[in-house]
Amino acid sequence: MNVIALLTDFGTKDGFVGAVKGVISTINPSVNIIDISHEVSSFDILEGSIILSSVYKYFPEGTIFVTVIDPGVGTERKPVVVQTERYFFVAPDNGVLTLPLKEQKIKKIVEIKNRGLLLPRDSETFHGRDIFAPVAAYISRGVPLGMIGDEIKDLKKVDFPEPVIKDKFMEGEIIKFDKFGNGITNIKEIPPYDEIYIKDITIKKIVKSFLEGEKNSLNMIKGSFGFYEIFVPEESAKDRYSLKKGEKIKIKLKR
Amino acid sequence: MNVIALLTDFGTKDGFVGAVKGVISTINPSVNIIDISHEVSSFDILEGSIILSSVYKYFPEGTIFVTVIDPGVGTERKPVVVQTERYFFVAPDNGVLTLPLKEQKIKKIVEIKNRGLLLPRDSETFHGRDIFAPVAAYISRGVPLGMIGDEIKDLKKVDFPEPVIKDKFMEGEIIKFDKFGNGITNIKEIPPYDEIYIKDITIKKIVKSFLEGEKNSLNMIKGSFGFYEIFVPEESAKDRYSLKKGEKIKIKLKR
Amino acid sequence: MNVIALLTDFGTKDGFVGAVKGVISTINPSVNIIDISHEVSSFDILEGSIILSSVYKYFPEGTIFVTVIDPGVGTERKPVVVQTERYFFVAPDNGVLTLPLKEQKIKKIVEIKNRGLLLPRDSETFHGRDIFAPVAAYISRGVPLGMIGDEIKDLKKVDFPEPVIKDKFMEGEIIKFDKFGNGITNIKEIPPYDEIYIKDITIKKIVKSFLEGEKNSLNMIKGSFGFYEIFVPEESAKDRYSLKKGEKIKIKLKR
Repeated sequence: MNVIALLTDFGTKDGFVGAVKGVISTINPSVNIIDISHEVSSFDILEGSIILSSVYKYFPEGTIFVTVIDPGVGTERKPVVVQTERYFFVAPDNGVLTLPLKEQKIKKIVEIKNRGLLLPRDSETFHGRDIFAPVAAYISRGVPLGMIGDEIKDLKKVDFPEPVIKDKFMEGEIIKFDKFGNGITNIKEIPPYDEIYIKDITIKKIVKSFLEGEKNSLNMIKGSFGFYEIFVPEESAKDRYSLKKGEKIKIKLKR
Repeated sequence: MNVIALLTDFGTKDGFVGAVKGVISTINPSVNIIDISHEVSSFDILEGSIILSSVYKYFPEGTIFVTVIDPGVGTERKPVVVQTERYFFVAPDNGVLTLPLKEQKIKKIVEIKNRGLLLPRDSETFHGRDIFAPVAAYISRGVPLGMIGDEIKDLKKVDFPEPVIKDKFMEGEIIKFDKFGNGITNIKEIPPYDEIYIKDITIKKIVKSFLEGEKNSLNMIKGSFGFYEIFVPEESAKDRYSLKKGEKIKIKLKR
Repeated sequence: MNVIALLTDFGTKDGFVGAVKGVISTINPSVNIIDISHEVSSFDILEGSIILSSVYKYFPEGTIFVTVIDPGVGTERKPVVVQTERYFFVAPDNGVLTLPLKEQKIKKIVEIKNRGLLLPRDSETFHGRDIFAPVAAYISRGVPLGMIGDEIKDLKKVDFPEPVIKDKFMEGEIIKFDKFGNGITNIKEIPPYDEIYIKDITIKKIVKSFLEGEKNSLNMIKGSFGFYEIFVPEESAKDRYSLKKGEKIKIKLKR
């Protein structure tokens, strides 16, 4: 059974996701639809790209990822399908696929052109339902990319804020918070250091499990998606220390 | 594979929806259950009706819609099944089906009576689980409506606030907001006009895609469910202009 | 088709649940995954146990419940599988299974040990994805418990606050609120009484359906999960009377 996995900023209240699933089930009744998230912050392409890159590799080979964070819906930004060695990605060409594609070998990119596969529409505000959902459903039924549109070579990119090294410091930042109030940073490796701090507060410990962290204090841990995370044991670091997205983490390097 | 689509005001925290799906899966393990929304505002029958009418037609023929916004649960309001030319609707008879049924030909309405199909219960607070879920599951297995209950002829209606024309004005209103803070109005067609405003703020443009709208200003667009929507590009119109449900949109007609 | 039912405190924004479902679908593409809730309050083992005990019995025989409320992830708390006469439960051994297991006959408990069934990992923060998801998927494919780990005899327990009788009073409390703002109490039976009150406010009526309750007042009803609930008709009792979790309900017993 094929899988179509959905990632959007649609929220779950308005029925948008239901309409998308209805369209998919009409075209391919036996496909397995899995929600990654519909709570991406509205229009936040980078956040969508981060979430997608953190989960896609856990899905079965052949999964079709439909990723609709699409502030430019209805403008000339292209709807595309990207085929990699293991997966398909259906999305607007606005950079949202940047991070997951960094780690994969791209086999083919097509711009969606074949109107015969799409829903007829008199509004250009819901391409998730009218374009991306039916195309994903037809791919799950085996329709080849050549029938969907013309091959293109390049995709828009979104900038990921990489850590920088200045003087004797490495400086990273919080790129998102999770539901527990842990601050996910952009740091994948920590070099030998003298001290790490955020907002002038020293990180107490770097640990292997949350409960080893020092209570009522900031700690760090290598998180499940490969980035270091800032946390307070059994509390929200975000709330306790009023942390914000973009907050800098300073690592004073060992001399 | 049959589809059962769920629309409720149950929220997703308490496990109510899980219980409903458990009941359905026990009776019909191979049915495909799709969530439309469980975040309808508590007891808001009109909102449920609006959401259902905006999505049902995207579902495959034969879909069974279970719609439980049910402030009168346990009172004498009737549990019903409505069969139309393409679909089944299982719901309390409180008006929630008004808008989707307006556009469809009704074939049969029955009041659910057959206790043998229902869960035994010693509480009258959760008919979603005890009545509507098992009935939907049995319909998905092919149980005919005649075995579910007695035919009835009429259903309760909910009032939809239609736009009105007074003097030289057409007056509509915001009937709901979506997740992006766009205000969905009750207006399907805009006649020739001199000016459109809301709270004394003039609508700048009527456009075909969100990004064509004038930034930091109110604009209108024909939305994906057939109604005009009030929006600010890449922002929440609701938050920026403190709009409320019921807020009037005034269209000064061209003379 | 087997069912795997998920109950976590992961939230639905970050993609955690998507990763769990991806892992399950990779191992068993044809299993039916049902969400109970992912909105359990962070780290709240008792709340998770209450929700699970209120819904599990509505699921088909053979359902595998994956319950990950796991503040101690990565510490020496054991990951376990419990087989009862009808179901399987996969969870950390931290008490979260206490309430559902109270009512069932346990056939076998194993501590998950077989690393060959788990995902390779270099972080100890996401056992839902790396340990519990694959084990549940293998059980759904028929892998016997003997291949998963060694039998153990005891499980951690969580304390459920039972009502107490003091002097001429029975005293219960609110153990959780539902989405409608109803206060679920720990009271299953009300003995003959003179008066019931909460925060010095007298409960007006005990009724069989919500709309029979006295408007703008506190009422009680036997809820769908077997506990009495405090409510205000078509309003949130929680908001209207600023009720809190743990708030005491005093029942003055008839003499």
